[in-house]
Amino acid sequence: MVNGKRPPELRKDPIIGRWVIISTERSKRPTDWNVDEEKKKGGFCPFCPGNEDKTPPEVYAIRSDNSAANTQGWKVRVVSNKFPALQVEGELNRRGEGIFDLMNGIGAHEVIIETPDHFLDLADLPVPQIREIFWAVRERMIDLSKDERFKYILAFKNNGVSAGASLEHSHTQLIATPIVPKRVLEEIQGVRQYYQYKERCIFCDVIRQELQTEKRLVVNHREYIAIEPFAARFPFETWLLPKYHNHRFEDMTYDDALELATIVKDVLKRLNKALETPPYNFIIHTSPLLDQESPEYHWHLEIIPKLTKVAGFEWGSGFYINPTPPEIAAETLRDLSF
Amino acid sequence: MVNGKRPPELRKDPIIGRWVIISTERSKRPTDWNVDEEKKKGGFCPFCPGNEDKTPPEVYAIRSDNSAANTQGWKVRVVSNKFPALQVEGELNRRGEGIFDLMNGIGAHEVIIETPDHFLDLADLPVPQIREIFWAVRERMIDLSKDERFKYILAFKNNGVSAGASLEHSHTQLIATPIVPKRVLEEIQGVRQYYQYKERCIFCDVIRQELQTEKRLVVNHREYIAIEPFAARFPFETWLLPKYHNHRFEDMTYDDALELATIVKDVLKRLNKALETPPYNFIIHTSPLLDQESPEYHWHLEIIPKLTKVAGFEWGSGFYINPTPPEIAAETLRDLSF
Repeated sequence: MVNGKRPPELRKDPIIGRWVIISTERSKRPTDWNVDEEKKKGGFCPFCPGNEDKTPPEVYAIRSDNSAANTQGWKVRVVSNKFPALQVEGELNRRGEGIFDLMNGIGAHEVIIETPDHFLDLADLPVPQIREIFWAVRERMIDLSKDERFKYILAFKNNGVSAGASLEHSHTQLIATPIVPKRVLEEIQGVRQYYQYKERCIFCDVIRQELQTEKRLVVNHREYIAIEPFAARFPFETWLLPKYHNHRFEDMTYDDALELATIVKDVLKRLNKALETPPYNFIIHTSPLLDQESPEYHWHLEIIPKLTKVAGFEWGSGFYINPTPPEIAAETLRDLSF
Repeated sequence: MVNGKRPPELRKDPIIGRWVIISTERSKRPTDWNVDEEKKKGGFCPFCPGNEDKTPPEVYAIRSDNSAANTQGWKVRVVSNKFPALQVEGELNRRGEGIFDLMNGIGAHEVIIETPDHFLDLADLPVPQIREIFWAVRERMIDLSKDERFKYILAFKNNGVSAGASLEHSHTQLIATPIVPKRVLEEIQGVRQYYQYKERCIFCDVIRQELQTEKRLVVNHREYIAIEPFAARFPFETWLLPKYHNHRFEDMTYDDALELATIVKDVLKRLNKALETPPYNFIIHTSPLLDQESPEYHWHLEIIPKLTKVAGFEWGSGFYINPTPPEIAAETLRDLSF
């Protein structure tokens, strides 16, 4: 892998128009990222089998043995977050306070416990188990989308303490919000502008170009593709996209879920090997619900290994400085052998 | 100080329209913030007196003793960053790569070394010294703004390793960019929308309301005010604003600089006392340069103590979850006695 210095570049994210500085002045080889591997400590854990009464009651579970709800025997278990960022009860009550605007923090906040095994990470699980996790996310999205107060459901994962995980037992989260998040609105705006101009989906065009040049391609599976985005904000930021246009994650079939699980495991294993099991976040960007549903959108999953610190410049400008060109990250991940 | 649980609220930033979740479910008292105070280690430092040849040559310095450039004797010293995010030489050369857009990473990246004393922090310095630092920022902004390739100059500070500082010797940075950063554009857009509707500056209106209710007021000095913003993204996020409308930081007089230094020291001492010397970032938001200059804007300085981890939900949504209501942060900072 070549990782020499080259002049800095300013690259524009084609979807939301955010500029990113690709600057190799302080570039590092993958092995230079001083990642502190976070060994799981164990100890009491409310997500472990036997402690089902230490969480709010389950709203969904996959149980192959006909065991009763809120007892052991589950493979994947979904519960409300015990310390939710938003709460389910009540009305929105939009109102003013002088020149300011506010509303009640209505929403839902759920946790998908990915495995009964405290010490396994998502990347360690067998593909069929990962499929069940994404299937649980889909089931919960469909159920929550029936609540007309909710405009959006964001699924995300914080893996590792420095990526914001407060419990080490592997889990994914869902937050349903009464407004469409700003980041998603920006993407939809970009998608629509491009569509008006080209009459094509910009994500589909990005996929076509990445498949053609292969410069930023990580892996190309039958139904899904993994790429390093052209204007990656972070080193080894990786996007997984369905190759065929679809705006809703929830439209996924059970067969698709197996394909998705396969590529997620493939990519996480590559990131773990290249970067020595880094902490990471992933987020699923899907269409808003109901009246704001957006068929022009193209759902995708963004993985962000936690390698750099976001500091004053980023907070102040909305600019990001990425020391690893995505072409180098892609080459590194692509060339790994297992 | 009362810090009890209350239902979560969604609050809208009146300037850029970003929604924030104020959620006290996981709220903490200031003393619960588990801040690891970062003791300075010393050792070799390129910013220390005697090592002037270990940095690029100085572009500005305050020397009271008529000492020669790039020797000891300075009080404040400005040099180019040895590992710049952007480079000064060359043309922008905007171009396409298929559907993508990029340009050369042209810009300037300078470091303001705030004191010869390795072990002092900005908050420890006497007010006249802090004045000279902000005066140096102003002088460099004025000089860099003569370069017509630059559209914006962002001044910012990373204090402490976990706030992104790579050298512990206290310093502020300047980055001149060939495009106006997204975050600043969003603020200007908001300011203009409000102006079109109300024919008043929204920052001036915010100041008026905060002075009237005093709920989020930290300190009120003669020329500057410090408040906790209504839709604060982070616990103890604090904004310093000139009380009288002005869009350009660089318009500050030498007298103003003393007033600014006074309130900056006051606020940093309060944050240090309340939060046990937290790592922090600050950023100065001023008007863009040249053809994008915006007289409707109102310059200000944002201080962000580094207390929470930004995780998947924030990256995916652009939403922030703030566990400390700004009213409680303001009350805490206001009520401190020294």
